[in-house]
Amino acid sequence: MADILKKRLEKCSRLMKAGELDVLLLAKPANMFYLTGDGRLCAFAMITKDGEVALGVPRTDVDDVKLYAKSGSITGFEDEVGMIHSIAHYFEHFGIKESVVGLEYTFLTQSMMGMLTHPHAKPEGVKVKDCTHIMSELRRVKDEEEIKRIRAAAKVADAGMKAAVESVKPGITESQVAAEAEYAMRQAGAEEFWRSYVSSGERTNIAHGLPSHRKLNSGDPVMIDIHPIVNGYSADMCRTVCAGKPSKEMQAAYDFYLNAQQAAIAKIKPGISVGELEEDMHSMLRGAGHEEHIFGPPIHGVGIEFEEAPLPPGHAFFHGEKEAPPLEANTVIAVGNCGLYTGNFGVRVEDTVVVTETGNEILTGYRRELEI
Amino acid sequence: MADILKKRLEKCSRLMKAGELDVLLLAKPANMFYLTGDGRLCAFAMITKDGEVALGVPRTDVDDVKLYAKSGSITGFEDEVGMIHSIAHYFEHFGIKESVVGLEYTFLTQSMMGMLTHPHAKPEGVKVKDCTHIMSELRRVKDEEEIKRIRAAAKVADAGMKAAVESVKPGITESQVAAEAEYAMRQAGAEEFWRSYVSSGERTNIAHGLPSHRKLNSGDPVMIDIHPIVNGYSADMCRTVCAGKPSKEMQAAYDFYLNAQQAAIAKIKPGISVGELEEDMHSMLRGAGHEEHIFGPPIHGVGIEFEEAPLPPGHAFFHGEKEAPPLEANTVIAVGNCGLYTGNFGVRVEDTVVVTETGNEILTGYRRELEI
Repeated sequence: MADILKKRLEKCSRLMKAGELDVLLLAKPANMFYLTGDGRLCAFAMITKDGEVALGVPRTDVDDVKLYAKSGSITGFEDEVGMIHSIAHYFEHFGIKESVVGLEYTFLTQSMMGMLTHPHAKPEGVKVKDCTHIMSELRRVKDEEEIKRIRAAAKVADAGMKAAVESVKPGITESQVAAEAEYAMRQAGAEEFWRSYVSSGERTNIAHGLPSHRKLNSGDPVMIDIHPIVNGYSADMCRTVCAGKPSKEMQAAYDFYLNAQQAAIAKIKPGISVGELEEDMHSMLRGAGHEEHIFGPPIHGVGIEFEEAPLPPGHAFFHGEKEAPPLEANTVIAVGNCGLYTGNFGVRVEDTVVVTETGNEILTGYRRELEI
Repeated sequence: MADILKKRLEKCSRLMKAGELDVLLLAKPANMFYLTGDGRLCAFAMITKDGEVALGVPRTDVDDVKLYAKSGSITGFEDEVGMIHSIAHYFEHFGIKESVVGLEYTFLTQSMMGMLTHPHAKPEGVKVKDCTHIMSELRRVKDEEEIKRIRAAAKVADAGMKAAVESVKPGITESQVAAEAEYAMRQAGAEEFWRSYVSSGERTNIAHGLPSHRKLNSGDPVMIDIHPIVNGYSADMCRTVCAGKPSKEMQAAYDFYLNAQQAAIAKIKPGISVGELEEDMHSMLRGAGHEEHIFGPPIHGVGIEFEEAPLPPGHAFFHGEKEAPPLEANTVIAVGNCGLYTGNFGVRVEDTVVVTETGNEILTGYRRELEI
């Protein structure tokens, strides 16, 4: 792990120099985890362009952080004032007075930004710039260990989906279906998971169908979207099933969407861009009159976060990301996120896919069938 | 519900006028939910100082939003560009050209801020100001229906804690303990929950002990912190138990902390401030030499979010909140969040408490005993 972190820091140095950044001040756990080995809430990491690392964490956590962060100095702080002072301390420690610090504009709230750039934290001569694109570029292509962890997360997603789908029957609530998925994912090896989505009936027509108390009726579509975390890495998987016999209309919409999703996956190989894949999937849906029945990017990256860069260009722009280069081997993406929302119901099938040297491999394997 | 929303909008108008804000542009689901009846991801609400309401949501969601939002106009958008255009549309619709718009500085990232204030969204003459304090002031004292829901969430937390504690035994992982709590909470009526914390052994010494694959050993302390969501409202509850026979040192630390927490709760009544309660609990801990063994505010508000305003003054300041006035009846707070982190292990007991006319009532009731 120490070797991997060293390599990442070296690449980070090169990107920082190219991007004219002297130091990064990170607070997003996913980014801190990637570059230091430890990412936690209420903490920060400072990374210089020479690859030096410093961490500030709650003082209660110092010993625990040492188990994960393999290099650099670690300071514990007692509260927000202490955090600000420890940032100032590291700026001084690294001799940084007139320079440019990179901050995570896609993560920091206005108030967090205020803390990190507080006059008692940041020297006046230090300018502030977004570093989102550097972290996304670093995390874009996965190494062997990362692929292994995402593969493990995909297996856990399969186990969670199986448990959820097997629980689907009239009378059970959406929240209870989510309970089955989450319980099974933790038993199968997830240390955590991102928020689960379960919607049913007409609620499958909404873009972010968080579970409610709605009870399934016979013949309802049920949309289940889960994202386990295994050793710090995620997978993203969605299935739509029917609590009974699907109507012809529902089966036709499902078959059509699944075909479009699988056709998009079939095109994945090094050299194609997420923008092209988006256009490909959209044009299939548009061609069948579904232009107004989709929402959200059909494709996005998967890694430490279940939804991360690369994003298709339009979404990337508005989410503060730069347009990603064409896919390379060992990039991991999820395909099928846009859904097909007919107005009466929605269907969605989403899988986590790794780009290989010659094509791709689908990591999430649970059956793709509407009828159970 | 329509009556309650009307009252809230009237109070909001008064606060906006006093705060010299002409319109709010909200994107935080908790705030949108409070003022419009609907709060969802990837959406916005515009509230004028005359109490007019407009919502922009994913176009897939328009019919669903109408089930919850009882007044105002609703527009569906197809993507980020559409969202920006619908914000512009409402500025025009309300005739707002030269004025001040309130944004949620404690919620918006730099990139979200960029979208909401994009030149194609916000008229040039409209200035931007933080509205966090207005939303916190509105949500500070709960109405009858809110108390009822928080009370229900507290009962669900009790059920979750019971299941988690009953699962504690050597060999089970922290993640599996969390699984039991979460499963039980969903079965007991939670539609969702905020991230669960379960830590054990030396990991109880960290401030944010998210569950890991660590297996419990006999005699380990286990810290369990859960936050169900029931009909949109939360409770916050933490217990520390021992997987076996606690050591004398652990029992003494536990007894001491529990006494301090219960003594702080005993002082809660209208007129006392969260700052005084913090000082009270801190001074008890300091008095026993534990000044360096605590982290985070011992007191915080509970409502739609499991951790919200009011916060003690220091934390409030750095989290972009204004200092809250002394407690009033029907304010709900959690007491015991600071923990006692000895270095070898930590103990924490936290309960959700409602301020009554004459004192307080503890809503979370599960037994407070280290030994199980």
